[in-house]
Amino acid sequence: MKLVNLNADMGEGFGKYGIGNDTAMLEVIGSANIACGYHAGDPLVMSTTTRKAKEKGVSVGAHPAFPDLQGFGRRKMILPLPELEAMMVYQIGALMAVAKSQGTSVTHVKPHGALNNMAAENIEMSRAIARAISSIDPTLILLATAGSCLCTAGLELGLPTAGEIFADRTYDEKGNLTPRSQPNAVIHDPEQSADQILSFLDEGKIITPSGKRIDTPIHSICVHGDTAEAVAIANRVKQRLESAGYTLVTLPEVMSS
Amino acid sequence: MKLVNLNADMGEGFGKYGIGNDTAMLEVIGSANIACGYHAGDPLVMSTTTRKAKEKGVSVGAHPAFPDLQGFGRRKMILPLPELEAMMVYQIGALMAVAKSQGTSVTHVKPHGALNNMAAENIEMSRAIARAISSIDPTLILLATAGSCLCTAGLELGLPTAGEIFADRTYDEKGNLTPRSQPNAVIHDPEQSADQILSFLDEGKIITPSGKRIDTPIHSICVHGDTAEAVAIANRVKQRLESAGYTLVTLPEVMSS
Amino acid sequence: MKLVNLNADMGEGFGKYGIGNDTAMLEVIGSANIACGYHAGDPLVMSTTTRKAKEKGVSVGAHPAFPDLQGFGRRKMILPLPELEAMMVYQIGALMAVAKSQGTSVTHVKPHGALNNMAAENIEMSRAIARAISSIDPTLILLATAGSCLCTAGLELGLPTAGEIFADRTYDEKGNLTPRSQPNAVIHDPEQSADQILSFLDEGKIITPSGKRIDTPIHSICVHGDTAEAVAIANRVKQRLESAGYTLVTLPEVMSS
Amino acid sequence: MKLVNLNADMGEGFGKYGIGNDTAMLEVIGSANIACGYHAGDPLVMSTTTRKAKEKGVSVGAHPAFPDLQGFGRRKMILPLPELEAMMVYQIGALMAVAKSQGTSVTHVKPHGALNNMAAENIEMSRAIARAISSIDPTLILLATAGSCLCTAGLELGLPTAGEIFADRTYDEKGNLTPRSQPNAVIHDPEQSADQILSFLDEGKIITPSGKRIDTPIHSICVHGDTAEAVAIANRVKQRLESAGYTLVTLPEVMSS
Repeated sequence: MKLVNLNADMGEGFGKYGIGNDTAMLEVIGSANIACGYHAGDPLVMSTTTRKAKEKGVSVGAHPAFPDLQGFGRRKMILPLPELEAMMVYQIGALMAVAKSQGTSVTHVKPHGALNNMAAENIEMSRAIARAISSIDPTLILLATAGSCLCTAGLELGLPTAGEIFADRTYDEKGNLTPRSQPNAVIHDPEQSADQILSFLDEGKIITPSGKRIDTPIHSICVHGDTAEAVAIANRVKQRLESAGYTLVTLPEVMSS
Repeated sequence: MKLVNLNADMGEGFGKYGIGNDTAMLEVIGSANIACGYHAGDPLVMSTTTRKAKEKGVSVGAHPAFPDLQGFGRRKMILPLPELEAMMVYQIGALMAVAKSQGTSVTHVKPHGALNNMAAENIEMSRAIARAISSIDPTLILLATAGSCLCTAGLELGLPTAGEIFADRTYDEKGNLTPRSQPNAVIHDPEQSADQILSFLDEGKIITPSGKRIDTPIHSICVHGDTAEAVAIANRVKQRLESAGYTLVTLPEVMSS
Repeated sequence: MKLVNLNADMGEGFGKYGIGNDTAMLEVIGSANIACGYHAGDPLVMSTTTRKAKEKGVSVGAHPAFPDLQGFGRRKMILPLPELEAMMVYQIGALMAVAKSQGTSVTHVKPHGALNNMAAENIEMSRAIARAISSIDPTLILLATAGSCLCTAGLELGLPTAGEIFADRTYDEKGNLTPRSQPNAVIHDPEQSADQILSFLDEGKIITPSGKRIDTPIHSICVHGDTAEAVAIANRVKQRLESAGYTLVTLPEVMSS
Repeated sequence: MKLVNLNADMGEGFGKYGIGNDTAMLEVIGSANIACGYHAGDPLVMSTTTRKAKEKGVSVGAHPAFPDLQGFGRRKMILPLPELEAMMVYQIGALMAVAKSQGTSVTHVKPHGALNNMAAENIEMSRAIARAISSIDPTLILLATAGSCLCTAGLELGLPTAGEIFADRTYDEKGNLTPRSQPNAVIHDPEQSADQILSFLDEGKIITPSGKRIDTPIHSICVHGDTAEAVAIANRVKQRLESAGYTLVTLPEVMSS
């Protein structure tokens, strides 16, 4: 049986502010990355989102970020590593207790936004994140961009490390995401998105525009729900994966298979 | 053996800001109430404080508060109860993970400032706090003002509930703390403080100015470290208790005896 | 010529979060109450909103609040009066500079949410707000619920004080807004809303359900834009007022007439 | 008459947290850079500090920063320029109203911490800061590190631009501050500090370790008050300047001479 996971960011509202389409996405995905109050999310939003995820059989992950609500965690910040590490512990722990209070538990961690992007290319930041996770619970899955420094740091520390690829983004010759500053960075066509995902999964490799193969484990596909188009892509990717014989499961199920 | 606990608030700095005399107080107390980032404390301060407490054999408790750094958690806020409950879960969970990362664990919870004062007289707020604790870990000790609504709520829900009295405050005829607005609210003399503590402990009752006895379990004595005078009182109370045959231990040790 | 003003809250987004329908409302109203960063709004949102208001000939007011983004300024907080006063000065000043940078100026102040509700019944809070305004610029118009303590405080201090009534709310026998906890508190029918507004304006009095007249100056009508229904009410109120011979102008124009 | 100004950062407490020795420094300096709530300072602290400065005849400047209380504004952040500009306007405006409410006014602006350091080497950030100031009031003095990009941007936009040198820091061959990471970055000896200041002032140039002269206008000397040593240096610099025939005045007095 070919198992794969779909993950999406969730619970990114704050107080009276809502964002995204969590209800629609919970029907599509197997695992939710839940904001922990630093870039989005507040304790009540976290609580509600975790409960809904549990009800839908969606596994729960922490989505820690820089302390930057105003910038939605997308602004680069240079933090001392001990502070970064402590911030990760804080956010993950907060969601762990929220999950416990809702009768479920946190099974993975995926950094958000600028933190994720910076860590992907910075092994010391990645190690600080990995240390934070390991110091709380070394059985937590680290969900990291396939081929990134964060993958390396997770494996170094013996964390169960899941590689993810992105449904709606193109890749460059190095196997990195094409920067958003370039015109073809984002995929808008559901079929193109599904084609790419399937070609990567079938070979177990990232395939660059020139056809180069980059060997990297792929456990999960990140989908988005912030626009109607994004939800449509997520749904189409799911259908195509199922048609191709993949079984869509939670991240812990993929990792324990 | 007569066991009793001394507790104090700790880790109430924030970023570059320091406050209190944690180092001196860790030599005196058995249990520390550690700020969780809402009224004071940040992840790094929490981490450092927890590690120091562990090194001194001082047990660690969460000290959750209203989200009010500017007011140091001393300003009354009216929050919806589900939100209050979620905020408690969030803060306690954050410290639990910090403690885990430092090789120790949270064993009690004591609300801070205006939250504690409001809950003491508001059974619904107290129940929300007790539910939050119980939903994370029903073996966590609730440390509550002796005779308060918070004690009631903890006992209702079956939480191990510890009653505390205050070293440097006088009591009124109802067994409540004399409001700080009154001239004799605060005790400045170490001997007077120790006399009061010993008389309460020896009878197991709060004794009012007129001599009335109010029956209420007493497990812990709250001492402060924010002034040189407060540290002196804490030290003197400790000496007098030991001279009187009390053994000073952590809160879990008192509760399991 | 019968002049009256429509005012609405604006610029209540924050970072990536949007809320309300500012674009539609700017076509309807004469004066905008712009959030100042405490309950909503950030410097960039304030800047954008102020520029749009200026472009539409809508006068700009400050909409200061409690420091409570998570609760959207709707949670009661008990603040020392000097602190409350300083917070008002801070928020109003921030918007004044933003307005200056966009080539316009702040001409009125209207407190938001729980702050407005509490001040309406608390003369000391109202005086602190009025002092703050007066200390910055005594020609700023204070926009206050008709008949409230805030009106009283504004007049005491000699501020130009405008009384406002609400388009989508019913009134009780005391001339206060029916609390939202009661079933008939909110008016959903545009015609009912317009009927009430016109009857109040024509008599220059608030008319209670039993027909009692409460004498109070009325300069402005507060409309909302947070739902499609609210925008419809605002538009219908505007049409009905114009049909009845009222000229809709900015708040400074009403006050200087 | 040889006029020069001493400036220092002030009002960097927050809520219950105090920092620095504002009272001592107000006896030494001519101009105060007052925190505006982003890296430190709250409305009440700003109000109190502004009033004290006025009482001592010390001129008041805004000390805007990155939104980073936890990092005391010392952590690098990458912000979009329009957002940075709006944040400057917001903070400066807030202090202007506070100053107005205390019967005084803001006469200069000096960016804080990481913002100042980044702007010093980044002309686009510097221009955003200069635009913000100019859009509020083009007569505000920009107080910038002598020879920095911020000086350039201020002069480009026609702002009165004051160059400052630092009392307790050494300079490198390029005329920049020696980075704090190097052992000799900070001057601890009051006489050495005063010697350097006087040699720079007398020539009107920054003198590098090798004796190279860098031509740059010098209007003000930044002194610190965060340690007893820093206060001692500030006092000694003042005495030595006065003995050498300098008259110490406010920044507006230097600029209008």
